[in-house]
Amino acid sequence: MALIVQKFGGTSVGDAERIRAVADHVARTRMAGNDVVVVVSAMGKFTDDLIRLADDVSPTRPPRELDMLLTAGERISMALVSMALGARGVESASFTGSQAGIITDTDHTRAKILEMRPDRIREALAAGLVPVVAGFQGVSTERDITTLGRGGSDVTAVALASALGAAVCEIYTDVTGVFSADPRVVSRARRLAKVSFDEMMEIAATGGRVLMLRSVEFARRHSVPLHVRSSFTWEPGTWIVEEDPTMEEAVVSAVTDDVSEAKITVGGVPDRPGIAAKLFRELADRGINVDMIVQNTSEHGMTDISFTVAKTDLEVATIACEKVKGEIGAAQVTSDDNIGRVSIIGAGMKSNPGVTALMFETLSRNGINIEMISTSSIRISCVLRADRVEEAVRHLHTAFGLDAA
Amino acid sequence: MALIVQKFGGTSVGDAERIRAVADHVARTRMAGNDVVVVVSAMGKFTDDLIRLADDVSPTRPPRELDMLLTAGERISMALVSMALGARGVESASFTGSQAGIITDTDHTRAKILEMRPDRIREALAAGLVPVVAGFQGVSTERDITTLGRGGSDVTAVALASALGAAVCEIYTDVTGVFSADPRVVSRARRLAKVSFDEMMEIAATGGRVLMLRSVEFARRHSVPLHVRSSFTWEPGTWIVEEDPTMEEAVVSAVTDDVSEAKITVGGVPDRPGIAAKLFRELADRGINVDMIVQNTSEHGMTDISFTVAKTDLEVATIACEKVKGEIGAAQVTSDDNIGRVSIIGAGMKSNPGVTALMFETLSRNGINIEMISTSSIRISCVLRADRVEEAVRHLHTAFGLDAA
Repeated sequence: MALIVQKFGGTSVGDAERIRAVADHVARTRMAGNDVVVVVSAMGKFTDDLIRLADDVSPTRPPRELDMLLTAGERISMALVSMALGARGVESASFTGSQAGIITDTDHTRAKILEMRPDRIREALAAGLVPVVAGFQGVSTERDITTLGRGGSDVTAVALASALGAAVCEIYTDVTGVFSADPRVVSRARRLAKVSFDEMMEIAATGGRVLMLRSVEFARRHSVPLHVRSSFTWEPGTWIVEEDPTMEEAVVSAVTDDVSEAKITVGGVPDRPGIAAKLFRELADRGINVDMIVQNTSEHGMTDISFTVAKTDLEVATIACEKVKGEIGAAQVTSDDNIGRVSIIGAGMKSNPGVTALMFETLSRNGINIEMISTSSIRISCVLRADRVEEAVRHLHTAFGLDAA
Repeated sequence: MALIVQKFGGTSVGDAERIRAVADHVARTRMAGNDVVVVVSAMGKFTDDLIRLADDVSPTRPPRELDMLLTAGERISMALVSMALGARGVESASFTGSQAGIITDTDHTRAKILEMRPDRIREALAAGLVPVVAGFQGVSTERDITTLGRGGSDVTAVALASALGAAVCEIYTDVTGVFSADPRVVSRARRLAKVSFDEMMEIAATGGRVLMLRSVEFARRHSVPLHVRSSFTWEPGTWIVEEDPTMEEAVVSAVTDDVSEAKITVGGVPDRPGIAAKLFRELADRGINVDMIVQNTSEHGMTDISFTVAKTDLEVATIACEKVKGEIGAAQVTSDDNIGRVSIIGAGMKSNPGVTALMFETLSRNGINIEMISTSSIRISCVLRADRVEEAVRHLHTAFGLDAA
């Protein structure tokens, strides 16, 4: 007997048949003696349809109204899931983000949760109901409807699990868990039974598509165990938990890839204090997230600074660099959107100094050139030509002994 | 410079093009120096789509969840209308029923408004915005989302117009106003420039399809002038206002028809006090609205009681009658769903005693048999065979001089 939060994404509630399957599963969980809180996303591509309609009436996507519009999606799926539960004899009630007490700031379309006041959810649980809560949405301190941005439904689920003291937050999706590499790239990738929060954060940050970084961060901060699993097969998936000090750690758990970034190089920059600060302040002021940063060794008092940004930010970032070019005395700004990144991640890496060498050897042996390198204590990332990325992932997956038998 | 409430029904916001047309019109009204509050229904057949989905996951349509589901519809249209206004430079914000302070009882799917607290709408107006409010919905005293039942968006509009002291509540629809008869039946029907609340109530109650009785009642009680007009042609439509004592009243303003009812006859009933009370209490307890009631003159201490109910209630009503048949000593219960009703309505009827005679003569002259009669001070209704109704409407329309030139 435990409290379980079960979150179902868009494909998991994509049509009436899927919704009935979700209700069957929730009913089974309930019958097994657990309390359940359900969190749902909008059905399938419904949000995309709404955005198309919005673009059809307004060129600007006004954020407050866009939030009002998009939150209709979860309202539909939560009411339908609640009805389907009722049809199975499971007493249930649906709650909007506002009714569930998800209080956010006023930053429409990417609001942050300020406070959780899930009083009505607690009351519903105490009354023996299964609360079905709208993911992705909240109500601002100005009493306006807000949305939590990409991956927001996962954040809702984790925040509720934390506030309610749930034993686990189950994230149901259309894949069976977190894999040692993208199975579309590496056919012998295997499902990981368990990964640590730290590893999962690195996986999410470097191209893992199952969970957004933000919800993993939130879960780690609040120590909410996550269980990522499939709403199509219902088999056990991947647990994301605190690192267990008694366990032998895998040296490398996963190889990830990401071709969504581009590289900018600001060349011929005087190597003196304050230059990098000026450059990256300019980028930060425009809301651009910079990922990998590499500064070459200085020659004759001059250096190059290279960094990666999302391809979607490339144009704005280039304009920003051109703007400060004169001020920082740079010779030129060049960009390259034909790059990709491959990363290896493993909590056991910390105590295994040979990992870096094996990674570089593997790439070199296969004639793959490394253009940038960045590392954390449990990750090594290399920037390569985009068209070599998939090949690199496969070689590394084999080299680190991850291939399924 | 006046405050105008403009309500747009489902066809008026049926797609992106219609929504842009609505925004153009609201912008024009605003430019003319008026304050505007917009009330919208769900887009076109969206509500029907949602009901189909609901039926697909649950056989029972649980009322609380059905309300949660259906209110997604207005949320979508109000956000889109607000965006479209923004695109025309008209500052605007959308508000749910709850945000607009529409407080209802807890009777889901047909809630009644208990109180209007449109503080946020007043604030928005004071800030120079055009508030766009979700029709059809409110929030209950239990903080659950409710809907106001059929015609609920009109009720929202009238209630807001009343609470805000609007000069007029404009109801935009897909017809150009209220007609002297259904134009599909009478090709020479003409648009009425003005009708009184009393007349409009009789028209709505006897088959007029433009406005629901409930919103007209509400408007009359709160003295809110209504203006029914088209969102396709935007031409002036029909004003529904307090009777103007200085005006000569039309003897007959409109001829209406209704084939949605069925007749039940409880025959061979002892003619003594309490019989009718028992019968209609039984029906009332099952939530059945009885419309026309006729009791024949007693013969040998026995009588027949006939009444009409909505065809959709016929089965339940018949069961109720069979149940009390023994108790009230009735001989038999028969039903007939092949009837229709034709009514003539006119505020001037009160002082024109010849109207009834002309109606009966007109029907008789055309060989149309009258099966039941009921009257009010400004209406006469006759029940006929269903297949004679349209013909009867045409003859009466001509006889009372309503045909357009």
